Amino acid sequence: MKKINIGIIGGTGYTGVELLRLLAAHPAANVLCITSRSEDGRAVSDLYPSLRGFYDLAYQAPTPTLFDECDVVFAATPNGVAMKYAEALYEKGIKLIDFSADFRINEVATWSKWYGMEHACPHLLEKAVYGLPEFNREQLREATLVANPGCYPTAVQLGYMPLLRNDLIETDSLIADCKSGVSGAGKKAAIGSLFTEVSESVKAYAASGHRHQPEIRQGLQEMTTEPLNLVFVPHLMPMIRGIHATLYARLKRNDVDLQTLFEQAYQDEPFVDVMPAGSHPDTRSVRGTNMCRIAVYHLKESNQALVLSVEDNVVKGAAGQAIQNMNIMMGIDETSGLNLPALVP
Amino acid sequence: MKKINIGIIGGTGYTGVELLRLLAAHPAANVLCITSRSEDGRAVSDLYPSLRGFYDLAYQAPTPTLFDECDVVFAATPNGVAMKYAEALYEKGIKLIDFSADFRINEVATWSKWYGMEHACPHLLEKAVYGLPEFNREQLREATLVANPGCYPTAVQLGYMPLLRNDLIETDSLIADCKSGVSGAGKKAAIGSLFTEVSESVKAYAASGHRHQPEIRQGLQEMTTEPLNLVFVPHLMPMIRGIHATLYARLKRNDVDLQTLFEQAYQDEPFVDVMPAGSHPDTRSVRGTNMCRIAVYHLKESNQALVLSVEDNVVKGAAGQAIQNMNIMMGIDETSGLNLPALVP
Amino acid sequence: MKKINIGIIGGTGYTGVELLRLLAAHPAANVLCITSRSEDGRAVSDLYPSLRGFYDLAYQAPTPTLFDECDVVFAATPNGVAMKYAEALYEKGIKLIDFSADFRINEVATWSKWYGMEHACPHLLEKAVYGLPEFNREQLREATLVANPGCYPTAVQLGYMPLLRNDLIETDSLIADCKSGVSGAGKKAAIGSLFTEVSESVKAYAASGHRHQPEIRQGLQEMTTEPLNLVFVPHLMPMIRGIHATLYARLKRNDVDLQTLFEQAYQDEPFVDVMPAGSHPDTRSVRGTNMCRIAVYHLKESNQALVLSVEDNVVKGAAGQAIQNMNIMMGIDETSGLNLPALVP
Amino acid sequence: MKKINIGIIGGTGYTGVELLRLLAAHPAANVLCITSRSEDGRAVSDLYPSLRGFYDLAYQAPTPTLFDECDVVFAATPNGVAMKYAEALYEKGIKLIDFSADFRINEVATWSKWYGMEHACPHLLEKAVYGLPEFNREQLREATLVANPGCYPTAVQLGYMPLLRNDLIETDSLIADCKSGVSGAGKKAAIGSLFTEVSESVKAYAASGHRHQPEIRQGLQEMTTEPLNLVFVPHLMPMIRGIHATLYARLKRNDVDLQTLFEQAYQDEPFVDVMPAGSHPDTRSVRGTNMCRIAVYHLKESNQALVLSVEDNVVKGAAGQAIQNMNIMMGIDETSGLNLPALVP
Repeated sequence: MKKINIGIIGGTGYTGVELLRLLAAHPAANVLCITSRSEDGRAVSDLYPSLRGFYDLAYQAPTPTLFDECDVVFAATPNGVAMKYAEALYEKGIKLIDFSADFRINEVATWSKWYGMEHACPHLLEKAVYGLPEFNREQLREATLVANPGCYPTAVQLGYMPLLRNDLIETDSLIADCKSGVSGAGKKAAIGSLFTEVSESVKAYAASGHRHQPEIRQGLQEMTTEPLNLVFVPHLMPMIRGIHATLYARLKRNDVDLQTLFEQAYQDEPFVDVMPAGSHPDTRSVRGTNMCRIAVYHLKESNQALVLSVEDNVVKGAAGQAIQNMNIMMGIDETSGLNLPALVP
Repeated sequence: MKKINIGIIGGTGYTGVELLRLLAAHPAANVLCITSRSEDGRAVSDLYPSLRGFYDLAYQAPTPTLFDECDVVFAATPNGVAMKYAEALYEKGIKLIDFSADFRINEVATWSKWYGMEHACPHLLEKAVYGLPEFNREQLREATLVANPGCYPTAVQLGYMPLLRNDLIETDSLIADCKSGVSGAGKKAAIGSLFTEVSESVKAYAASGHRHQPEIRQGLQEMTTEPLNLVFVPHLMPMIRGIHATLYARLKRNDVDLQTLFEQAYQDEPFVDVMPAGSHPDTRSVRGTNMCRIAVYHLKESNQALVLSVEDNVVKGAAGQAIQNMNIMMGIDETSGLNLPALVP
Repeated sequence: MKKINIGIIGGTGYTGVELLRLLAAHPAANVLCITSRSEDGRAVSDLYPSLRGFYDLAYQAPTPTLFDECDVVFAATPNGVAMKYAEALYEKGIKLIDFSADFRINEVATWSKWYGMEHACPHLLEKAVYGLPEFNREQLREATLVANPGCYPTAVQLGYMPLLRNDLIETDSLIADCKSGVSGAGKKAAIGSLFTEVSESVKAYAASGHRHQPEIRQGLQEMTTEPLNLVFVPHLMPMIRGIHATLYARLKRNDVDLQTLFEQAYQDEPFVDVMPAGSHPDTRSVRGTNMCRIAVYHLKESNQALVLSVEDNVVKGAAGQAIQNMNIMMGIDETSGLNLPALVP
Repeated sequence: MKKINIGIIGGTGYTGVELLRLLAAHPAANVLCITSRSEDGRAVSDLYPSLRGFYDLAYQAPTPTLFDECDVVFAATPNGVAMKYAEALYEKGIKLIDFSADFRINEVATWSKWYGMEHACPHLLEKAVYGLPEFNREQLREATLVANPGCYPTAVQLGYMPLLRNDLIETDSLIADCKSGVSGAGKKAAIGSLFTEVSESVKAYAASGHRHQPEIRQGLQEMTTEPLNLVFVPHLMPMIRGIHATLYARLKRNDVDLQTLFEQAYQDEPFVDVMPAGSHPDTRSVRGTNMCRIAVYHLKESNQALVLSVEDNVVKGAAGQAIQNMNIMMGIDETSGLNLPALVP
């Protein structure tokens, strides 16, 4: 198999190490370089002993030509970094898959409002393809610049998509009650993410407005012609990985078999698994994998649709979906490197 | 202080040991006897070393006259047990506070449907007072038989009560997305509650119908004259204690200051704490205590009320509320034995 | 690659599902059948949704000829089961790799004392090869019946082996203080393994004698001519997977560079990783992998050797080592199917 | 009861909030002031919502006369802070109980070597009393300056004390294998204490030398006339609270009933509980309490004593022991405010 030469911008965090873990099992991946200013010169396997024996690679400070030999560059960086690399890569025709939010929001004013900075290259926003393969696969095949979706947005959009595309629900009152593991907060020295602060406890956060709300809303709006309104409340769970999205919507009609609808909608998708009727997918059933598992209920008494959608926020919500996007962009088997069962228990 | 003589039916489980823990700090409590057929003869402090030095008491098999010296009997038993003791105690005028669901549902047919058995003493249902002091305090003062509320019902009812009593929300579409620690499942040898099964994972359960739904619905219905419909989805969290209820409701009006409303509604309540605007109460902030902490949001864009309501399911959701009820029934300070801060971290 | 036909006896527990997870990534594995009396007829992927899409296989009750097409049979059963299958398989020349203790102890009287039953086929004990490849690789190449080592014994033996083989330590006072995740207790409905019982707590168990003690002692004794005595104290940790063995030994000599000794001892081993001097391997660095990571210290003030040895008890301590043994027995690359990085974080 | 006026230096961390939690239940405690430069002006109950309703107190920056009305001052500060306050308080006759290591080590050179700074008032070292009541109660009654013991040192010293005082063990090879929850690292924004880093994992740390080693060694040495050598290896556990010390020692004699010895040694101690023979104390059995629970084994085959000693590192290992010391110093009931059962489960 022809190798894909890969560069990684900023691979010291959790999505970075997960990308390295998954690429170690990818038959075509050839990681050429990985950048970090703070860890310049340090072996990847020194920072992450779990990678000992898999990479003979050290972090290095970025240079203007560092990625010139790459086919694909992943940016596993905080918001506001990838946009500074995007233009140069785009002009060289090097594919960029950005894990951050820099290219996810179509309207630059909305982006600036939620992310608190000026956008470095607003003219590239229209070139960027939103990397949700189940929604956008054809455009991804030709994409040079991909905005990899956020973790919550992936689970929520996949859960609502069949309902919206078939015009089955009232769109003015969607409620997405979401639960995430702590890795969603990244590898940052913050008191709020200490074991002593989050273990044996649950809480909501950003209840009055979270950055993923406009991203989800934009994505859902593209699935319907009706004006759409969404309540999105994220909660922090005492676990490392996993997102559980519990999605509520009022049904417009009473005569549709939601189970069949979902099964048919996703029957050809390699990374969406519609569970048998009556299932309760748990986040561990997708731990370490690129799968999104979904169960759907028709609550007849209240005429609501209830969707339970779980994913590993670090995989389908970040590094795994990025590899899925790479596979599509490079025209190889979409499941390459991603076809492994979850770690249970 | 005059001592209250106390009997406990079935104190080997988690609500039983919590009751003993709390009563150890209660200035008036005098535990006379505690029953268990399976642990007959075993010292309480042998089963629970945490109680060494606090109780010189052994479990014993129940006898017909065992509780005759008691002022109050707590039944910390599975559903279907307390109802077998209720009549005899009631006739002797001994107060019974039942932790189970035996006396929570007014309609015996509904009870039988959800709990799968015949009721042993349906004629006592109308004598039973539902033990939510914030709703029912006056009736509790005179009660002989108290149905201690379920854990979820307590958190949900306290969260919706000010909205319903003031006719502020549409009652046809309440959504209660609830998260519970594993102790809610009790001390039963079940594979589904093993550390290896529930740690590092989150899932919904009983999505198509949970036993607490009719209890919550009945309780909420009593707060409004409008017909009421409720979606209730419980989720299992990887933590021992704690319930987080996330409550959604469409507002009928846009001009009410919900923060002030809640603060006034609960200003005299010793065990409901309305947090400052913008707060996100975490379950650990009530760990080991009888407090229910609540935050309320007005989501203006969608005109929804959002309520975050947290409690310790074993305390305010069980043993603590039972003691609060006992204090009310016995005419002593309602906070006796319950006025301790949470264990943080 | 020529396929290896595989049968599994009793694959409903944690080592069973882990075996299936790992075999799903093994290029030569072809699982023909898997037995369970209690789950007879149930799809493997129904019991373990994490395996959906990987196996089109159902549990079935065992029959006398069920394994006749198999090259290798794994027994992932409680103690006392595999020995009932062993003779028939042995006579048919079908390789058996037993996860249980049935064939680990050379002396049948010792075995019966610790495991509380008669041995079904004591004459096979001398045919069985103890499946610790780092100690026994050559014998394993010819083995038909393999006793896969216990989880604790693997971590402890690999930690002490270089010291014993080089006669560097006093053998009368070895101390192995070991810490294990809860999955070591298996998938059994036991109160002692409930989340509510073991989370947020640590304790020793079997301090006066654990079944793995004679197995470890026998293994270590084979590495030295000196009489050997071992104190082994296991502890239960609030985590799912992982063993951390902390090994103490008095040095006989003061002039040996332990770091170099260990690095050389294991330089050709694919699944033992000697960490750089001063390291503290954490169990997560081997989560889901077949690696044993070791750090060694010379504590000069007390002239002790200290070895820190970590493994995933379900992989190198069970299913992974079993596959490593299968690879050796079948003459294929020893790392087949096992060459994946750990899941971090 | 006469009130004790209390000041707290630096109460924003975990030992600070625990001190406040425990003092809220202390019948004589009257907290006058609490300092923090970083949180100057912030209400204590704003930083710790768990304390809402218990304290009407705000953090304030320290001033020279702030503590003048205090009977007792607790310093819940990092190493190197309390020693700057000690002299002024000492001269005013105000009792100081220091949670840090500033006054624990008798030899100033040893202290400076391990703590990496000059000591601010070495002449006060001989005035300081080491606050382990079970060893030092009489001196504590008269003390003005108390060095509250470290968390590990408390559990280890209480475990070895009966053996050393009765000259039963060889003192040249003590091995203390200790396991601690994450709260021992304090409330500091450190990557190594993130939930994502320490959950689902176990590791040793500071294996080549930990600051508590000289403190433990000094304390143990005072219990014997023999020269004493100690190996101390701490391990980090995925739990918030709790220390489990597993202590090994070679017995000099074979004829002593260790169980009786320990029971008699601690029969009058309110906060040391010798468990029945064969017990395995778990850390949760002391969660939130000032109790140290101990089990002792005579391992006859290897002629070793094995001691299992558990405590809550934040209580008996810090704030609780400090209150115990205050009670002794003030001449009131030693158990005041500390006589509550553990939070189980």
